[in-house]
Order: sequence, then C-alpha cells, then structure tokens
Amino acid sequence: MEYMFLIAPIAAVISLIFVAAMVIYINRKDDGDVSMKEIALAVKEGAKAYIKKQYSIVAIFFGVVFIILLSLVFFKLLPIPVPFAFLTGGFFSAMSGFIGLIVATNSSSKTANAAKTSLNGALRIAFSSGMVMGLVVVGLALLDLSIWYAILNSVYRHLPMEEKLSIITSTMLNFGMGASFQALFARVGGGIFTKAADVGADIVGKVEAGIPEDDPRNPAVIADNVGDNVGDVAGMGADLYESYTDSIVATMALAMAAGLSIKGVILPLAIAGAGVLASIVGYFFVKSKEGANQKNLLWALRRGIYGASIIVLILTYFIVRFLIPQHITIYFSVVIGLIAGVLIGFFTEYFTSDTYKPTKMVSKSAQTGPATVIIEGIATGMISTAPIVITIGIAIILSFWVAGGFSDFEIGLYGISVAAVGMLSTLGITLASDAYGPVADNAGGNAQMSKQKAIVRERTDALDSLGNTTAATGKGFAIGSAALTALALLVAYKNEAMMKFVSIDMSLTNPRLIVGIFIGAMMVLWFSSLIMKAIGRAASKIVQDVRIQFKEFKLLDGKNKPDYARTVKICTTSAQKEMILPALSAILGPIVIGILLGVDGVLGLLAGAITTGFGMAIFMSNAGGSWDNAKKFVEAGNFGGKGSDTHKAAVVGDTVGDPFKDAAGPSLNILIKLMSMVSIVFLGLTVALTIFK
Amino acid sequence: MEYMFLIAPIAAVISLIFVAAMVIYINRKDDGDVSMKEIALAVKEGAKAYIKKQYSIVAIFFGVVFIILLSLVFFKLLPIPVPFAFLTGGFFSAMSGFIGLIVATNSSSKTANAAKTSLNGALRIAFSSGMVMGLVVVGLALLDLSIWYAILNSVYRHLPMEEKLSIITSTMLNFGMGASFQALFARVGGGIFTKAADVGADIVGKVEAGIPEDDPRNPAVIADNVGDNVGDVAGMGADLYESYTDSIVATMALAMAAGLSIKGVILPLAIAGAGVLASIVGYFFVKSKEGANQKNLLWALRRGIYGASIIVLILTYFIVRFLIPQHITIYFSVVIGLIAGVLIGFFTEYFTSDTYKPTKMVSKSAQTGPATVIIEGIATGMISTAPIVITIGIAIILSFWVAGGFSDFEIGLYGISVAAVGMLSTLGITLASDAYGPVADNAGGNAQMSKQKAIVRERTDALDSLGNTTAATGKGFAIGSAALTALALLVAYKNEAMMKFVSIDMSLTNPRLIVGIFIGAMMVLWFSSLIMKAIGRAASKIVQDVRIQFKEFKLLDGKNKPDYARTVKICTTSAQKEMILPALSAILGPIVIGILLGVDGVLGLLAGAITTGFGMAIFMSNAGGSWDNAKKFVEAGNFGGKGSDTHKAAVVGDTVGDPFKDAAGPSLNILIKLMSMVSIVFLGLTVALTIFK
Repeated sequence: MEYMFLIAPIAAVISLIFVAAMVIYINRKDDGDVSMKEIALAVKEGAKAYIKKQYSIVAIFFGVVFIILLSLVFFKLLPIPVPFAFLTGGFFSAMSGFIGLIVATNSSSKTANAAKTSLNGALRIAFSSGMVMGLVVVGLALLDLSIWYAILNSVYRHLPMEEKLSIITSTMLNFGMGASFQALFARVGGGIFTKAADVGADIVGKVEAGIPEDDPRNPAVIADNVGDNVGDVAGMGADLYESYTDSIVATMALAMAAGLSIKGVILPLAIAGAGVLASIVGYFFVKSKEGANQKNLLWALRRGIYGASIIVLILTYFIVRFLIPQHITIYFSVVIGLIAGVLIGFFTEYFTSDTYKPTKMVSKSAQTGPATVIIEGIATGMISTAPIVITIGIAIILSFWVAGGFSDFEIGLYGISVAAVGMLSTLGITLASDAYGPVADNAGGNAQMSKQKAIVRERTDALDSLGNTTAATGKGFAIGSAALTALALLVAYKNEAMMKFVSIDMSLTNPRLIVGIFIGAMMVLWFSSLIMKAIGRAASKIVQDVRIQFKEFKLLDGKNKPDYARTVKICTTSAQKEMILPALSAILGPIVIGILLGVDGVLGLLAGAITTGFGMAIFMSNAGGSWDNAKKFVEAGNFGGKGSDTHKAAVVGDTVGDPFKDAAGPSLNILIKLMSMVSIVFLGLTVALTIFK
Repeated sequence: MEYMFLIAPIAAVISLIFVAAMVIYINRKDDGDVSMKEIALAVKEGAKAYIKKQYSIVAIFFGVVFIILLSLVFFKLLPIPVPFAFLTGGFFSAMSGFIGLIVATNSSSKTANAAKTSLNGALRIAFSSGMVMGLVVVGLALLDLSIWYAILNSVYRHLPMEEKLSIITSTMLNFGMGASFQALFARVGGGIFTKAADVGADIVGKVEAGIPEDDPRNPAVIADNVGDNVGDVAGMGADLYESYTDSIVATMALAMAAGLSIKGVILPLAIAGAGVLASIVGYFFVKSKEGANQKNLLWALRRGIYGASIIVLILTYFIVRFLIPQHITIYFSVVIGLIAGVLIGFFTEYFTSDTYKPTKMVSKSAQTGPATVIIEGIATGMISTAPIVITIGIAIILSFWVAGGFSDFEIGLYGISVAAVGMLSTLGITLASDAYGPVADNAGGNAQMSKQKAIVRERTDALDSLGNTTAATGKGFAIGSAALTALALLVAYKNEAMMKFVSIDMSLTNPRLIVGIFIGAMMVLWFSSLIMKAIGRAASKIVQDVRIQFKEFKLLDGKNKPDYARTVKICTTSAQKEMILPALSAILGPIVIGILLGVDGVLGLLAGAITTGFGMAIFMSNAGGSWDNAKKFVEAGNFGGKGSDTHKAAVVGDTVGDPFKDAAGPSLNILIKLMSMVSIVFLGLTVALTIFK
C-alpha cells in the first residue's frame, strides 16, 4: 500500500524534467531586435536585483527564526527536524519564485517578437512561461515533502506504525512555515514594490508629464514592469506554494486524527501527484489554430484547465478507491473542492469583468465623478463576497458531510481538508493561466518601448486582456484554497493542542475565545491598513526620484536615458523596509494572543482572521478588479472615452483599486495561512508562557 | 429586597416629568423673527411628514410580524406576552423618536435666536433639546420594562420564586425585538434619507449651480436639514433605545443562568434607574459663564457627563453592595463598562478630529488628489479599529474576570452583560451630548437661510463644531454598547437554546458553526453594500428633482421659492422603499441559517456578524469622520484652503465618507443587535423547521 506514496516524488521529478524541457523550448525562441533585447534585459536585471535584495533580507529573517526554532527544539517545545524543514521549505519556495521570475522576464521579448508573426505563437511562449511557474511550484513543493517524508520514515522505522505516523505527521505539520514566511515576503514586499512603482510611474508620467504609459522616457517604467513580475509571478507563486504545502501537511495530520492511518496520510500526496501529471497533460490541450480570435484562445486555455480537471478526477477516483475503499465518498470531497474553485473563479470574473453588469455600473457611476465611482466600486466589491462566501460555505458543509458528517466527525473534517487538496490539485495549470498574464503584459510594454508596429501591441494587448480573464479564475483558486487550507490548519492546531494539554474550552461563550475572534477580525483591517499606508509612503519616494530624474537628465527631450536601475533600487529598498511591520505583526499576533489568552484565544483569533480575512480579501480584490476594468471600459470609448471627465473619475477608482487588488487583498491570503502556521509552530512556546494556565 | 426594583419605574417617571419641564422651558424661548420661524416650520413639517410616512410603513411591518408572532404563540413556539411586548417596545421607541424629533426641530430657530445674544444661551437651548431626547429614551424604555415586569410578576405570582423568575426573564428576553425593529427602520431609513438629501443637495447646489451650502434657493436644503434630525436625532435615539433595552433584558436572563435569582434580575434595572437620576443631576452641571470660549463650553459638557458618571458609580456601589454583597466585585464590571465607553469615545475623537495627527494626514494626502485622500482615509479608518477593539476586548475579559472568571463561569458572563448596562447607565446625558449637535447644525442652517448677522452663524458654528467633538463620545458609547449588548444576547441565546434542546456543539471545529461565522462576516459586508447602493439610487432621484426645480421655478434668480416639500417627499419615498431589502435580509438571515444549519450555525452567524460588524462599523464611521474633518481642516485655510485642488480632493473624500459614517457604519450597530434578537425570538421556529435535527 505504501508504495502509492511514490506517485508524489515521481510526479515531482517528471514535472521538473518537463520544466527543464520547457525552459529549453522557450530559450530557443528569438529574442527579437536589439531594442527589444535591451529593454528585456533592463527588466530582467531589475527583477534580479529586487529578488536578490529580497532574498538577502529574507535570509536574515530565516536565520533569526531558525535560531529561535532551534532553541525551541532545545527546550523540547518542537520536534528536532522542524528548524531544518523550515529552511528547506523556504529554500524551495524561493527557488521556484526565482525560476519563475527569470523565465517570465526571459519570455517577454520573445513573446513580443513572436507577436510580430502570430497571436497563437505569442500565446504559446507566454503560456509556456506561465506553465514553468506552475510546474516548478508544484514540483518543488512535492519534492520537498516527499524527501522529508522518506527521511522521517526511515529515521522512525523502528517505531510501531501508528506511533511512527503520528510523529511524522505532527512533525510535518510544522513544515509549512518556511513556505509561509517566503510567501509573506514575496506577497507583501512584492505587492508594495509593484504598486509603489505603478502609482509612482502614473503620477509623474501620466499625470504630471503627460506622457503615455510604458513610455521609455519615464524612469519608473522599468520598475513598473519589474513589479508585474515580482508581484504577480513570484508573489502569486509563493502564495500558492504555501497553500499547496499547507493543505497537504494539514490533511496528513487530520488523517491521523480521523484514524485513517497510513492510507489517509498518503492520500493527499497521491492526489497531488496525480494532479501534477494531469496538469502536464492539460498543457498539451492548449493549442489553437492560426488566425484564432480571442474567444478561441480563451477556450484553448479553458480546455487545458478543464481537461486537467477531468483527468485528475478520474485518477483520483481510482486512488481513493484503492487506498480507502471503505470511505470512497471522500472522493466527492475532491470533486467538491475542484468545483468550488471553478465557481469562485466564475463569480470573480462576473464581478470584475466589464462584460457583466456590475463593472458596467461602476463605469457608469464615473459619470457623476470620483466620489460615486468609489462608492459604487466599494459596494460592488462588498456584494461580491456574498456568492463566493456562500460557495465556500456550501463546499465546507458538503465536503464534511460526504466524507463522514456528524456520525464520523473527524473523517468529516478530513474531508474538508481533502477538498482543499482537490481544489489545488491542478495548480500546475491553473497557476500557469494566471502567471502568463504578466508575461503578456510585459511583452506589450516591450513592444511599446521598442516602438514596434501597432499590430504587435494589439496582439499582446489581446493576450493581456485574455490573461485578465483567466487571472480571475486563478485568483478564485488562490483565495478559496487559502480559506480551506487555513481552516484545515485551524483544526490541526486544535488537535495538536489537545494532544499536548488537558483542557481547551472551544465554546463560543468562552470570553477568551470570543475576544480572540474580535481581535482576529481587527487584525485583518489593521494589516490591510499597514500595507496601504506603506504603499503610499513608498510611492511618494518614487515620485520624488522620478521628478528629480526628469529635471536632472532632461528626459522629456528624449536625448538622455533615465537611470532605470536607480528607481528600481528605491522601490526595492522601500518595499523591503515597509514590509517589516506588517510581517512582524502577522507573526507576533498569534504568539502574543497565545501568551495573553491561551490556546482558546488563539483558536478564536484564527477563526476571526480566517473568516473576516476571506471576506475582506474578496472585497478588496474584486473592488480593485472592477475599478480596473471599469476604467478600461471607459477607455474603450464608453461614457465619453479617454480624456473625458468620466475617464478621469474612473482613473481615480483604478488608482484606489491598485493597492486593494494587488497588495492588500492578496496579502490577506498569506495573513490567514501564516497566522495559522505560526500558531502551530509556536504552540509549545505559547503554552509554556501563557499567563492563563 | 424586591422593592429595589422600584428604583427603575420611579426614575422613569421622574425623567419623564423632567422631560415635560424641559419641553416647557424650551417652548417659552423666543422663536425669532418671521423668516426664522418660517424656515423652522418647513423643517419641522418635513420631519413630521417623514416620520409619519415612516411610522405608517413601520406599522404595516409591525402588523405582519405581530401576526407571525401570534401564530408562533399559537404553536407554542413563543410565550404569550411576546407579541404584545413587541408592540409596546416598538411603540415606546417610536414615541421617544417622535418626541425627540419634534423638540429638536422646535429648538433650532430658538437656538439661532438665542445665538443673537450669547453663545451660552444658545448652548442651553440646544443642549436641553438633546437632553429631552436622552431622557425620553431612557425614561420610556425603563417604563416599558418596569410595567411588563410588574404585569408578569403578578400573572405568575402563584408560581414558586425561581420558576416565576425563570419564566419572566426568558419571556422578557424577547422584548427587545420591538425596539430592534424600530431602530432598524429609524437608522437604515433615516440614514438613507439624510445621506440622499445631503448628497443630492451638494451635487446640484454646490457643484452644478455653484451656490453655497444651506442656500434657501436649493430645493433640497430643507430635506438636508430634515435629514440631520431624522438620522442623527431619531435614528441615534432608536439605536440606543434598543441597546438600552436589550442590555437590560439580556442581563436579567443571564442572572438566572448565573444562579443569582431575584437579586441579579433586579440589579440591571436598579443600575439603570440610578443612571437616569445621575444623568438628571449631571444636566445641572452643564453651565458656563457668559463670554465663555469653546474650550470652556466643551468642559461644561464634559462636566455634565463626568459628573453623572461619578454619581452613578457611587450609587451603583451601594446597590451592588446591598443586593449581592457576596458578589461585590460585579461592581467593577460597571466601572469597566463606563471606562471602556469613555476610552472608545476618546479614540474615536483621536482618529476623527483634525486636532490630531491621523486626520491631519488625511488632509495632507488630499494634496496629491482624490485617490490618495481615499486611500489614506480608508487606512485611517481601518487602523482606528485596533485600539478600540483592544479596549472592548480588555473590557470583556476584565468584566468577566472580576465578576466570576473561570471558576464562576456563568457569573463571569453576567459580569460582561453588566458592563454593557454600566456603559449605558448614563445614556440620558451621553445621548444628550450627541443629539444636541444636529440642533446646533440646524440652527446654523436657519441663521444662514434667514440671513442673520455673521456673528449668529459663527456662534452656531462654534456649537456645531463642539457637537462634533462630543458626538464622537456618543458614537463611542453607541458602538461599544452595541458590541457588548449583542454579545450578551448571544450568550442568552445559547442559554435559551440549551434550556429547550439537548445538544449544541458550540465548538469552533463544528463545520456548521464555522460556516456560520463565514456567513456572519459576509452579511456585514453585504448589508453595508446594500445601504450604500440604496443611497446612490435615492440620491440620483433627488438630483433629478432638484435639477428640474431649478429650471421649472427659475430658482437661481431668487424670485420664486422652491417646492421644499416635494423634495422631502421624494427623499421619504425613496428611503422607505430602499430600506426594505436591507431590513429583510437582516431579519431573514438568522432564520434561514437557523433552518439550514441549526442552532450551531446561528451561534456562528452571530459571532461572525458581531465581531466583523464591530470592526467594520468602527472602520466606516471613523473613515467617514476623518474625511469630514479633513475637509473642514482644508476649508480652515490649510493646504490651499477653499477652492483649491486640495479642497476638491478633500470634498471627494467627504462625499465618500457620508454614507460610510452616517448610514452604513451606524446601521451595523443595529444589524448585530437585531440579528441576535431575531435569533432569540425565532429560536422555537427555526428549531422546529431545521433540517439538521
């Protein structure tokens, strides 16, 4: 039976080989003319500079936390392997971010160059680059987990089966923290970077100097392009790397509580492995005839995702049937997870795409000025939470109920966790459909700056707009999986705490717990606010530098070149500095509450943060998405078109929406998972120090 | 011992007599010249028209719900007196709103007239008018509860003491619903009315026609003034009437669960009675010498509130000592409640007043345009939740701990509820310091429209600005007490459910409960969004009418008079229509969740709604307050002053903030209490119909 585990490492290795093949495929493509290469190089250098700087700061954090974890091990408050697994998790996550980023920045000029000839050719390159990100994330995550599982299995081989598994799963539960930390820095730092650059470039370039977007005379333009890669490729990748790892380790831990033993422990690894293979097959469905229009292309992408989903559903059926035939209904938890992900993606698209009524209404409200466009956008974002929260609510209840329900409570909870694994099983390809967008976007920037023919920009714009649609699906998966994963971690946390200590009062009328919920809900607002303020401060530094450069180099004449690297550096430094406070509060929150209010308080804290965080993340992302597309709708010639007062009002909406959708909103995904993970890892410490024994 | 109960009805009667005396005092004051009278009459007629229309619609709702409650009685799902108490609660709340509104609209021209002579004289009238609102709310609420207590006591006199009390408290727990319904309509309908009128008046008057605020040529100007009274006087009054009633009945119910019997049941009534008396004494502290400056006046008001607080603390000590000497520490729960209220008021002021840094920063951010002012305001509102949530968290833990703590769990919970009663004990005067603001505001409008000398407007402006500061304290009490009251109701709900049915799984890992929390958090966003959209729709109707009137009557020439009543009518009709959907969703939410997810789900729903609702209410109110004062700060000549681009940006912030702070934010106070109340009243029904037995 245990050999079923091997699906995971085999799939991981296959996916990494496939990644290598794709990198070779992409590298063989033409980089375009000199000007294209030059711009691509600037972006690549900027991205590298950023990521190096980020990793060097992250390394310090990792060093500090590693020492803290080691001392926890010393005081027997943590299992021995945890500090080391913390490092490998962080390392692999960083590596996947790095590879994804390099390939993405490599691909933009190639995509632009291919767009000279055909839309389809450009799509293949951009999508392959996204696929590299997707597969490297799932491949490295599975590899990391498989290796550790094998190591622990061998170390504890002398123990009886149940005891061994119990130690392994409870140890591995702590393994997500490396990925969590990496994700925090990637999402928060990346989010601040990308939005500060974006806002800075817009304020001085578009508004003050009156030059178009992506104009090479703007010193912040490279930073803006770097930001797209840093935030949307590396940030998104790290976010989902974390969800992926966490959902698997949480499911393994819950399997033991559910009494499913080795079979239940292997199941999530096997499903994940099957999903990787399905994603690779799905990649080959993404083909389209020459001369395809945008709708055909969208269906080409969807064919890939749906194809992979069907394959994983078939494979999973046999896996479940083989591993736990007496609990075959758990299979439906996987189905429910996948369907919920797709539905959330659909609702996200409905509320943010300008082909539907809500965003059209936001556009329309821009006619009466910026205030009404803001109110309407906020209202749209808020109302969009209703169908999405209800979807996740139904998914939780159903996946619990089909797996075991109240008569088999622990297996029911295991079912919820399996739904998260199911939702993320096709991550290889869903992430690709999200991560290819920034490549297309950058290709457009490249075409613009290197002054290509209009048709090139038109084609890359078509790809970019297509990317916005598929990104909605990707965001749906990211946000939905974050909620389910965090919930699974919460349950696992409770189990861990119960294993160690006598009494936990989990009841809602326990004041410690209810105060925890209050504070959890508040922390979501506090965290969002810190990030928005950070972007404001960072953006104003960019604005200053860009203004100075315009004067210093007389850029508007077009003779001198701006010092792109300087702006990138300022962005980088500010982002790194600004991410420290939000990061610290996310990490210290559960520890402080644990010490003050005990385990009960932490449970409340997590419940409050997860539920409010989920709602606020949807609200902020969708309000931002809607403002963005409402502006584009006006720019497409509606309600007065570009340059009209309506357009100006819509731009205000878009500017407010930027930090909402690309920084604060997605960072909440990280916040809720990280807080859960920190609670688990520091459980021993908080209980030792808690003032309420 | 039981005669201690008499403090409540005696205090109620005294307060009503005092109200009568004050009404006579105010009525004797001079109404001013013909023009002043005329304008005051228009506002009064408008307010009357609105309130009549509102009550006629509310009457229909009450009729329908009364019949539903009667049928629940018929199926033995509710105690017999509940439908009747529902009516009396609604009736008394409506009556206090009506009286407060009439007196407030009566006082505006008198205040303006008094301001011709002195600031202090104007303050006395305006504050007395606020005091009428404050005392009529507490007087009628206490009277209603006392009468019912006496009736039930007499009906069940043949039963043994414990059984009798158990029936009485469990019956009276349902009595808050009449007040809750009334509050919902007053706050939501009133909020929509006032903001639609405000936005409508501003858009056409200030922006399009370029005439100043409160210009009599603007047809919406009377509606705007009516709105202040409707929203801030009647709405606020109904909100606090509800908190006041609910906190008392919840405490009575929790007394039985805590085994405190008759003494614990009487305690909240006695404290409330003492508070009424203390408020009346406090009123006499609000005096100031002639020629006092604004700071003196602020201290005059504060002397009133602090004086009343000290008196109630002294009286309460003897009450607790006399009634439950063995639990004398419960006294500290009262102290904690009062201190928490004051602290929340202080933090509210800190984040919203332009004398402190946060609002100055919002002002400053207006220099870079509307987008940055919006982002900064949102961030400020969000961050303001931190100290306030922490304050309420500490208050919950401490009031629980001093009363009983974990060793005496139920008495501890009783302590939390007593803290709510303590916080609201001085409501008579804290509400006065809030409700007097709109009177001053209207007096200013009256002075402007009737073209008084500049000094008159200056004095009323000074009063108005003073009102803004004290209103922050009032809002702090409203919001803090709503959270504590709702929490007490949640505990009471659980107790009621446990008394009737065997098993409730209150644990956080129960999927029904956790899904309930998700949906509760979501409902807060959904509800806010409905209200904001409603205001948008209503405002656009006003805009249309005002535009038509400008053409129809050639108003800008100043020869013809606008048809104020028509605009008021449109406001009224839209507000009434628009409040139905939010109202229905607040009422049906707990019932539907109860049927689908059972009592566990409802508990989660309430916990989610209370915690997220509290955070969002603070966020929205304070963001709105900060934008408002940031605009005023610019208007005072900072960052370019009136007419500058900075000012325009600040106006956008203020316009976005209006529905935040005066409609959506405060409505959340109602939402969380109403949902708790509906859960209690429909407990029998939902359990009978629930699909999860």
